[in-house]
Amino acid sequence: MKREIRFGVIGAGYMGKTYAIALNGVSTVFSLPAKAVPEMIATTSAAAAASKAEALGFRRSTGDWRRLVTDADVDVVGICSPTFLHKEMALAAIAAGKHVQCEKPLSLSARDANEMALAAERAGVKTLVGFNYAKNPATQLAKQMIEGGEIGEIVHFRGTHNEDYLMDPSIPMSWRLKKEFASQAGALADLASHIINLAHYLCGPVAEVIGESQTVYPQRPGAGGRPEAVENDDQTNFLLKFESGVLGAIEASRIAAGRKMGLTYEVIGTKGSLYFDQERLAELRFYSAADPSNRRGYRTLLIGPEHPDYGAFCVGAGHGFGYNDMIVVEMKDMIEGVSSGKALWPSFRDATHTALVVDAVLLSQRERRWARIRELAEGLPQ
Amino acid sequence: MKREIRFGVIGAGYMGKTYAIALNGVSTVFSLPAKAVPEMIATTSAAAAASKAEALGFRRSTGDWRRLVTDADVDVVGICSPTFLHKEMALAAIAAGKHVQCEKPLSLSARDANEMALAAERAGVKTLVGFNYAKNPATQLAKQMIEGGEIGEIVHFRGTHNEDYLMDPSIPMSWRLKKEFASQAGALADLASHIINLAHYLCGPVAEVIGESQTVYPQRPGAGGRPEAVENDDQTNFLLKFESGVLGAIEASRIAAGRKMGLTYEVIGTKGSLYFDQERLAELRFYSAADPSNRRGYRTLLIGPEHPDYGAFCVGAGHGFGYNDMIVVEMKDMIEGVSSGKALWPSFRDATHTALVVDAVLLSQRERRWARIRELAEGLPQ
Amino acid sequence: MKREIRFGVIGAGYMGKTYAIALNGVSTVFSLPAKAVPEMIATTSAAAAASKAEALGFRRSTGDWRRLVTDADVDVVGICSPTFLHKEMALAAIAAGKHVQCEKPLSLSARDANEMALAAERAGVKTLVGFNYAKNPATQLAKQMIEGGEIGEIVHFRGTHNEDYLMDPSIPMSWRLKKEFASQAGALADLASHIINLAHYLCGPVAEVIGESQTVYPQRPGAGGRPEAVENDDQTNFLLKFESGVLGAIEASRIAAGRKMGLTYEVIGTKGSLYFDQERLAELRFYSAADPSNRRGYRTLLIGPEHPDYGAFCVGAGHGFGYNDMIVVEMKDMIEGVSSGKALWPSFRDATHTALVVDAVLLSQRERRWARIRELAEGLPQ
Amino acid sequence: MKREIRFGVIGAGYMGKTYAIALNGVSTVFSLPAKAVPEMIATTSAAAAASKAEALGFRRSTGDWRRLVTDADVDVVGICSPTFLHKEMALAAIAAGKHVQCEKPLSLSARDANEMALAAERAGVKTLVGFNYAKNPATQLAKQMIEGGEIGEIVHFRGTHNEDYLMDPSIPMSWRLKKEFASQAGALADLASHIINLAHYLCGPVAEVIGESQTVYPQRPGAGGRPEAVENDDQTNFLLKFESGVLGAIEASRIAAGRKMGLTYEVIGTKGSLYFDQERLAELRFYSAADPSNRRGYRTLLIGPEHPDYGAFCVGAGHGFGYNDMIVVEMKDMIEGVSSGKALWPSFRDATHTALVVDAVLLSQRERRWARIRELAEGLPQ
Repeated sequence: MKREIRFGVIGAGYMGKTYAIALNGVSTVFSLPAKAVPEMIATTSAAAAASKAEALGFRRSTGDWRRLVTDADVDVVGICSPTFLHKEMALAAIAAGKHVQCEKPLSLSARDANEMALAAERAGVKTLVGFNYAKNPATQLAKQMIEGGEIGEIVHFRGTHNEDYLMDPSIPMSWRLKKEFASQAGALADLASHIINLAHYLCGPVAEVIGESQTVYPQRPGAGGRPEAVENDDQTNFLLKFESGVLGAIEASRIAAGRKMGLTYEVIGTKGSLYFDQERLAELRFYSAADPSNRRGYRTLLIGPEHPDYGAFCVGAGHGFGYNDMIVVEMKDMIEGVSSGKALWPSFRDATHTALVVDAVLLSQRERRWARIRELAEGLPQ
Repeated sequence: MKREIRFGVIGAGYMGKTYAIALNGVSTVFSLPAKAVPEMIATTSAAAAASKAEALGFRRSTGDWRRLVTDADVDVVGICSPTFLHKEMALAAIAAGKHVQCEKPLSLSARDANEMALAAERAGVKTLVGFNYAKNPATQLAKQMIEGGEIGEIVHFRGTHNEDYLMDPSIPMSWRLKKEFASQAGALADLASHIINLAHYLCGPVAEVIGESQTVYPQRPGAGGRPEAVENDDQTNFLLKFESGVLGAIEASRIAAGRKMGLTYEVIGTKGSLYFDQERLAELRFYSAADPSNRRGYRTLLIGPEHPDYGAFCVGAGHGFGYNDMIVVEMKDMIEGVSSGKALWPSFRDATHTALVVDAVLLSQRERRWARIRELAEGLPQ
Repeated sequence: MKREIRFGVIGAGYMGKTYAIALNGVSTVFSLPAKAVPEMIATTSAAAAASKAEALGFRRSTGDWRRLVTDADVDVVGICSPTFLHKEMALAAIAAGKHVQCEKPLSLSARDANEMALAAERAGVKTLVGFNYAKNPATQLAKQMIEGGEIGEIVHFRGTHNEDYLMDPSIPMSWRLKKEFASQAGALADLASHIINLAHYLCGPVAEVIGESQTVYPQRPGAGGRPEAVENDDQTNFLLKFESGVLGAIEASRIAAGRKMGLTYEVIGTKGSLYFDQERLAELRFYSAADPSNRRGYRTLLIGPEHPDYGAFCVGAGHGFGYNDMIVVEMKDMIEGVSSGKALWPSFRDATHTALVVDAVLLSQRERRWARIRELAEGLPQ
Repeated sequence: MKREIRFGVIGAGYMGKTYAIALNGVSTVFSLPAKAVPEMIATTSAAAAASKAEALGFRRSTGDWRRLVTDADVDVVGICSPTFLHKEMALAAIAAGKHVQCEKPLSLSARDANEMALAAERAGVKTLVGFNYAKNPATQLAKQMIEGGEIGEIVHFRGTHNEDYLMDPSIPMSWRLKKEFASQAGALADLASHIINLAHYLCGPVAEVIGESQTVYPQRPGAGGRPEAVENDDQTNFLLKFESGVLGAIEASRIAAGRKMGLTYEVIGTKGSLYFDQERLAELRFYSAADPSNRRGYRTLLIGPEHPDYGAFCVGAGHGFGYNDMIVVEMKDMIEGVSSGKALWPSFRDATHTALVVDAVLLSQRERRWARIRELAEGLPQ
């Protein structure tokens, strides 16, 4: 009988459900050294948790997340709660010796992220942060192609993460718009963090940034329809320089009319370029200067079994890849990490870099100057 | 405790695995009256079946499909074997009172399909055929829009199902290329059947056809590399008239360089049109003459929670939809059909119409004339 | 001083204006052995012609086309009148020893086209028919690539020419909808002729066809708003086999909601494929099986100076190409044909083949059977 | 007889030819109060100029541009020389009372541009700068839609002008890469100036910027193949705030592998958005929140006769629009400006704002801080 890796998931909202779907699927999709088990789910009441366990296929449930993180039969804790709770939950799970898979953004600040990363490193547990778009086969392929030199040396990066889920000003207040629960970084932390993480994945660490953000709708209807203050940004733009010297620009918005999952990137190299748009998530556009000069053009690669991780889902190229499939790949990575010690991307340490970039953008706005990642990183405990 | 609906799956190739993924996921994705259970899997040997059961998450296994179809704890039989075996397996399952979910094409001929449909109707069991592309939210949306009159009266249909998985002549012989196992219809039965079925779904039944097919590579390497005869078509084209009088054209190819999942359709109406390409499966293009004349243009609808069946997978619009997700929808439909008696598309009866169109195309080629569906249908037992 | 080639244009509607724009531009765009001169324009009255000459830049004008075709200072006659007038005008021009450039379709029937072609051949004058889309650099490039073997042996052709300029049934009657003035082929002659001509250009002559056409709106408002009968088809579909054995399908419509210049073709070969859409006229999509298997994808070639005829217009790749630019290329070809004797595509002879295909489609509809081009061609005077 | 407006063009390189094509076409395309005449061309020698006059259709020629600008029969002077010559030529033409059409960028600095604008304003002559992309019907339509409130209040602008004509480091040195002839702004002045000008056109004046530029290839082969220093940037990125408070970002590159005419913009508003890409110059993508929520999507508007300036070229929608057609519109505007006094976009004054933005980006890089346009504008003579 194959070893089991048992997951306890905190949170039964849509990400909790997403984790459940992935946990129920991953062992059928992939041939793995251990079988994923949806062991326990925690939400705010015992009754709700029991009902969710039944609906989502968990063996057990609890109304108290502290019991989940210390439960002897939980190997990995998945954290799908609002951002401000991540730190306490993750530290408790780490203290109990659990591996931790945490939704993004990892924390309210780089300082917190660093504390979480240090704790995990000292405890020797595996960590993984839900910057799930790195799991897309198209983006894994982009990474392979860059590393293989197919576009030469990188000279430019542009990334966006634009959505329009808050474009209507009558959409009510939520925890995501409050400093206390989601930090003073709004679209910057919620959305830009995804593309910052991918920028790091594809082009290496960031050295410095300068940005500007705006809260276009400073109020939203709160309880009883009374206007409440929105406490973080609706849209943000920043320039960045990578440690490699590469120049780039990133933008994010939660009010960008027309974009639903507008995570895009363009990586320009000396010998070619890559372009990706998550709204067409199973395609990667590739321009190669190795083609004859009169036969050059952007090529649309449809993802297929010859590309990373796709073949386990489907043997036919171009048959498509879905949002939940990316989460299945996350679960696969976590299982491999726990089973074999394989390094995982992005760990709490990697996500700390993302958080540093977010904090540096905030600093650059406040002081209206370029901010270096190092000046923030140096202040953190090592 | 929720009622269980227990599936027995015959075949452990890639469609068997696809069914397993879907069965393991459907009850988490959807809130259903009964829970899907991957009960038993059958393949050619007991040992192989046991290993597959472990890998794919089935409770039990057997090396003898006849035991599966008569097993008391199997409610639905899923048939994922080569085409020539469908009829015998389906009839045995129906005889045992099982509901049947069968891969496409349903059978080697319309006569066989009709026999299977009649048996199921007489037994009062539910049937569903794996023309899975009808389950795509984008295509369900197209159906809704057509029925809602959003493009007016239909005047034209064009459909394709082009792939290139056999474009390389060195790809070896397989059962799909042999008359005995897959019929004398090649791309016509294997691929065109998908788009014929969708044409029926979107525009109603077909009245007459005229077609032409070609076997571009008449030989392929067989056992030991010796050339063997390919016994059915590599590509096919036909014109069709629907019973409504609408004119159309369909083509299919398994050697169409560049297309991986080139199932496309364009439906032209008197007030607008729709265009779909399965390679971008989460998009539907919509042109509406109701827009002001200087603001008309094809609109790309990204599928989201307001469209059929998507919201159960993901709450965010435009986040993508994958191949396996369509199979999950198939399983959901079967569970609802069994639980509530809901009519299912496409049943064995619907697939018999698809088979009649295929047979009529063959007839039209043989006799080089238009062939009416009715002239074939009238010869079948009622 | 450079030799002049003087053009007389019959017709001052939109095609007459288009010819004028091209004649005024061609000698600046291209470096040619002779200079194009817009010498004379003819329309229905002397006064209207004089006014048009002033507006469009012609030296002289006439209200009588017969004077134009016999004018000693006219070298080339351009015919931009309704179809039913082409034959008489062209024969008169040929009799006067003029080279002739005639709008499409060339004539009301293949018989007439053949008569015109024979007359021109006997007189030794140059002819060119306004199937202008062959002049697009993207399509010239497609031709080069096919001839260079870049997609291997052709196995399939699909072409469309869909527009929606008559999709609204309140659009009034015109000469194009009347048998007497435009033949019993409607969209078939007016639009499909373009794509038939391109099919011939790219894949060689057609051997046989079977088609079906429909007049979706059998009446349109005539004089005083009274309904008048539409006498030819709104949409047509046909299958074809080329003399090479290649299979294909063509469709055309003047009521295809959403398409404005929906001339598209896909040419599938054994080693790759090409796809073109005239609505994106400066792009050619190219799939090459010569790319590594995991790096294959449709490549979008943006037309630039390394491709045929583009560089004379613009030195920068991807800067765009317009409708009138294609007509400039037509004029350039005619000037080169007259100056140097270069063979022109498509001549009256080439257009006779197009007309034969149109007539064969009509025959195939009438008799509901495949019609061979040869059975019609054999009846024509040689 | 219609009044003539006679153009003298300085420079017979590719822009000189482009002007010639447009001057030979504009009076046929548009119905105008005066007829454009290609009167005189000047280039570096009398012989070359005579030859070019013959090739390009000018009445007269000269080897001395000073004679052209003072010629009594020249009404409008077109300046198609390298940037560093614009100021002297324009001032001389203005001093002679000529209207001036000048290629972009207008000058080596905002100070020079301002001097040129002041001179023209004092002389009361018309000026027009060759930021030709504003003449594209698609972009004129975008302007109309924004002004008509179709996308609500603007909240974000992103623009690019990326090309790859210098991506190969073996491409030799040219005047464009030298501070003396093209300023210390490279891609910033040559390419970004286009999109800065469009940003101004669509969203109003810019208030402040911060940018960063890079010279990726610091040397290029000069005379005899010896490496010479490149003196300005290959790529640039900057953030901007408009006077309206709208946030935005702009980038430009001359080494962006894959982009040939990558002038793109996205304008996000509170009720919709627009997206444009000059590589598909006859399309405008439009997202409207006025569509029902489940029928929203980016709509591709194909430019047609109902949109600005297109109908004069072609009566059929979607038939395409070319690079030279935009220059024809420029000529039309100049003729209307001279004939009727109509205000022209972009005048020397408008181009001075563009130059101020360029200079502010340079300042922001030098001092690594946000730079306000006003701090530079205030230092200029009024």
